[in-house]
Amino acid sequence: MSLDRKGLKWNGWGLAGHDFELGDREDAFWDYIAAEIGRESLEAVAPIALEDLRLPASRLPRQARAELNDAVGAEHVRSDAYERAFHTYGKSFRDLIRIRRGEITSAPDAVVYPGDAAEVIRVIQIARAHRLAVVPYGGGSSVVGGVEALRGTGQQGVITLDTTRMNRVLDVDTISHTATIQAGMYGPALEAELSESGYTLSHYPQSFEFSTLGGWIAARGAGQQSNGYGAAAKWVVSARVATPEGELRTLSFPNSAAGPNLNHLIAGSEGTLGVITDATVQVHPLPEKRDYRGFLFKSFERGSDAVRALVQDEIGLSMIRLSDGPETEFYSTFAEIGKERSRVRRLADAALDRGGFGDGACVMLLGSEGSAGQVRIATAAATAICLRHGAIPLGTRPGDKWYEGRFEMPYLRDSMLTRGLGVETLETSTSWSNIANLHARVSAALTETIESFGNGGSLVMAHISHSYRTGASLYFTFGWPMTEGAELDEWQAIKVAAGRVLREHGGTISHHHGVGADHLPWMRDEKGGLGMAILSAAAAAVDPDRIMNPGKLFD
Amino acid sequence: MSLDRKGLKWNGWGLAGHDFELGDREDAFWDYIAAEIGRESLEAVAPIALEDLRLPASRLPRQARAELNDAVGAEHVRSDAYERAFHTYGKSFRDLIRIRRGEITSAPDAVVYPGDAAEVIRVIQIARAHRLAVVPYGGGSSVVGGVEALRGTGQQGVITLDTTRMNRVLDVDTISHTATIQAGMYGPALEAELSESGYTLSHYPQSFEFSTLGGWIAARGAGQQSNGYGAAAKWVVSARVATPEGELRTLSFPNSAAGPNLNHLIAGSEGTLGVITDATVQVHPLPEKRDYRGFLFKSFERGSDAVRALVQDEIGLSMIRLSDGPETEFYSTFAEIGKERSRVRRLADAALDRGGFGDGACVMLLGSEGSAGQVRIATAAATAICLRHGAIPLGTRPGDKWYEGRFEMPYLRDSMLTRGLGVETLETSTSWSNIANLHARVSAALTETIESFGNGGSLVMAHISHSYRTGASLYFTFGWPMTEGAELDEWQAIKVAAGRVLREHGGTISHHHGVGADHLPWMRDEKGGLGMAILSAAAAAVDPDRIMNPGKLFD
Repeated sequence: MSLDRKGLKWNGWGLAGHDFELGDREDAFWDYIAAEIGRESLEAVAPIALEDLRLPASRLPRQARAELNDAVGAEHVRSDAYERAFHTYGKSFRDLIRIRRGEITSAPDAVVYPGDAAEVIRVIQIARAHRLAVVPYGGGSSVVGGVEALRGTGQQGVITLDTTRMNRVLDVDTISHTATIQAGMYGPALEAELSESGYTLSHYPQSFEFSTLGGWIAARGAGQQSNGYGAAAKWVVSARVATPEGELRTLSFPNSAAGPNLNHLIAGSEGTLGVITDATVQVHPLPEKRDYRGFLFKSFERGSDAVRALVQDEIGLSMIRLSDGPETEFYSTFAEIGKERSRVRRLADAALDRGGFGDGACVMLLGSEGSAGQVRIATAAATAICLRHGAIPLGTRPGDKWYEGRFEMPYLRDSMLTRGLGVETLETSTSWSNIANLHARVSAALTETIESFGNGGSLVMAHISHSYRTGASLYFTFGWPMTEGAELDEWQAIKVAAGRVLREHGGTISHHHGVGADHLPWMRDEKGGLGMAILSAAAAAVDPDRIMNPGKLFD
Repeated sequence: MSLDRKGLKWNGWGLAGHDFELGDREDAFWDYIAAEIGRESLEAVAPIALEDLRLPASRLPRQARAELNDAVGAEHVRSDAYERAFHTYGKSFRDLIRIRRGEITSAPDAVVYPGDAAEVIRVIQIARAHRLAVVPYGGGSSVVGGVEALRGTGQQGVITLDTTRMNRVLDVDTISHTATIQAGMYGPALEAELSESGYTLSHYPQSFEFSTLGGWIAARGAGQQSNGYGAAAKWVVSARVATPEGELRTLSFPNSAAGPNLNHLIAGSEGTLGVITDATVQVHPLPEKRDYRGFLFKSFERGSDAVRALVQDEIGLSMIRLSDGPETEFYSTFAEIGKERSRVRRLADAALDRGGFGDGACVMLLGSEGSAGQVRIATAAATAICLRHGAIPLGTRPGDKWYEGRFEMPYLRDSMLTRGLGVETLETSTSWSNIANLHARVSAALTETIESFGNGGSLVMAHISHSYRTGASLYFTFGWPMTEGAELDEWQAIKVAAGRVLREHGGTISHHHGVGADHLPWMRDEKGGLGMAILSAAAAAVDPDRIMNPGKLFD
């Protein structure tokens, strides 16, 4: 990953110069989207160019700059426009709307790239002495406002602390299945290096290519294969965190009853305790075999019952992913756009309709990884359960196609914003006994709110992608034709409506995206007054001046 | 469970009138023990009788008593000698030595039995107003000094808050596999009631009959089947905690990224945040089949390698228990004491010796629970792994015998103390790459320290009983002939020596017993100064006057 960040978009997702690939299907696709939301055509809304961007002047005191130069080397203290613009926001909807419009009220006064844990401590101490906020920044892929360059009351400025120079695997313990890795390592480099030892972390969030180990832990992330490999809070064995009061570290025990488990306070701390500098994580031998395959269910309810049976029966799968009716419809239409439907295909569709697999039918993708024997057993057991729930096996093609394109979707968001289309995701989790209820209520709230804008229709779809014995996640994707100038108001109205449903009907405000600035208003309800008091007291114990990532997680 | 506690021993383990059953093998057993530790015979050391016990006078202010009576009913505020003696200590070595000698410097000034969460809050508020410490007490089975009736500096007295009137299953959600249960429910009643719905928590610590749900969570306990069902910190889905500042509660999400997971702060809080009043826990359908069987390995190392393979290959076992050489020898001798060894048996033993299964051979017990199919598959896969590690299958008899007597051993401790024999356990965990090292070093430290007393030999044995992908627990049991009057000094010397080895060689101070008062000296090293600052700040946030269980977990 290029350190000067020029290889990445400063105002959108991923690699500079790379867009969502539609090829010769581009026009047909956008016509389909326009029709879905009840518009005749879509207008182009171009983002502001870097040279037109007006950044606030850097407030970094000269003395602080000198101390930072001394601490990490002058070449690692950056305040050029590209670096400051790149690090102003993360990749949330609010972030993208604002940066595309050039709305920047607070940019980092400097971006600092420390080289190791000791340098991180020094940078934090310098910031503390000069009353500067410190925003930890790995890949910057937060979609909930987790890395916005905010400062707290009374703070003189803000330093963004970029961890990506700390990008080495320090140790692989092949006996204990652990690896100790620096926090600023991006997903691809991390997996490439682990695989040289024959191991894998297998944490594959959609952001995998553009997010780092430290961010995965700080935001309690979950990868697409979390059913098999666990979410970050499960696979983190120990961590080191540079705080304003010094280093907080946990030890690498497989389990301990020596008081509360501080790993679970570090996971989800979102930079408010300090900067995770490295972590020891649980790894697995590289799987001998991977099998990803699809099944078609008559309804979300039948599919969801099957997911529940798969996890409660402890079939050892790495992934269980069930799209609801609208999402199944969307992806199936997307796959067909611009293609001639053959007569055979039309006949097959008619037969499916007659068999009850028409409107509302849902695709489930199952992934199994491990030894050939494990995969064979798991696939057989899972297939039996799916058939028992009335599913039609679709073979490995839908699984392989999904696997191939699994990191591409975030690029589509930029293309949609460029056409005046808002698109956002919202993920939650709830118990099995509440999942149908919550799915229906959130879907309805999203649709109703969007339609209340009177500006066209909505796209609202969802999937279950992480499941547990006691319940599952629900991941909603929704799109709407934005009213120019009112994009953030519309977004806010949607968040408020959905947040109310989550609070009143037993859903968490986030299953794996985190809190950031976006979810602050719902945190107090969810954690309760005393829960928040505990979290706040814990942060104050290591950061008495509250310079660490202000405006995120807490008020 | 009798509420007036008269059905239980006030100064030892378990049911009043029940002792460890040796039958007609009693003399032979004690002769064997005496020989093992190099004594000709063992002397009787009787505990003090209740009527001879001198309890400090109750310091409960009259006004506080009146308020407590009003809050929970006068019949639930007890200060008779039996209740106060019963609740003075838990069941740690130090506790038992002191209560048997009649050494009581601080007894509860009252024992209060609230009936619900609201009453718990009122009791705590009354205590706070009168500057009284509150010691939460469920089964009182802590073996690390977790329930001793201590008060903090400046506190006027101490109330022990007994939770056992809160003993109902409130809800079973058979769709989501969760149950909501009051914290004061003992193991047997809890399982009996869950089984009526067809479900089980399957948390079976050795203390199962005499410990409660709240205690299991507060001390981060692990049951004997934790490989299959998880330890308390894993199966707790949410909890309610009555604190001096009001109710702290978490919500029942299967997973959430909305900040740190406070369940992991409640689990292991040992009463320092407040009193757990109820919890929602993950349950499983009652297993259709249980299979417990034994294998014999040539050495602890071979057995330990097999345990590692069993967990890292994710064979779905409920229990993997590997005794080291001395423990295998102890139990095998114990089983044979007072029995004629047949000629066939002697020939078999000789054959085992010749095959390399003599001194140092280790028994492993494997448990599998679930559907008949799951048990068959797991047992076959596990057997294959054991055979690959050179084991001899011993069939189901050793497994069944262990299962039958799995809650009996704590009774033996009282019988040993009565004969002047110290007996204590010590449990830790470490990574697989360090397990042989730590096993050897702790065993040596225990043996050397005991032998340094110059008072006879030692019994030192260990097993692995909880295993994970990254490492395992080590559970040591050790016995020594105590020097009269110096019992606690000897114990202290052993703890210090073992604690030093754990700290220096990568072992946690507790895998599942907790911290209590006994492990305080090692907490700061293990959690680090900032870790302790966080835990202390978290407690102060809900208990500013620090009345909750003073002297445990923190200084």
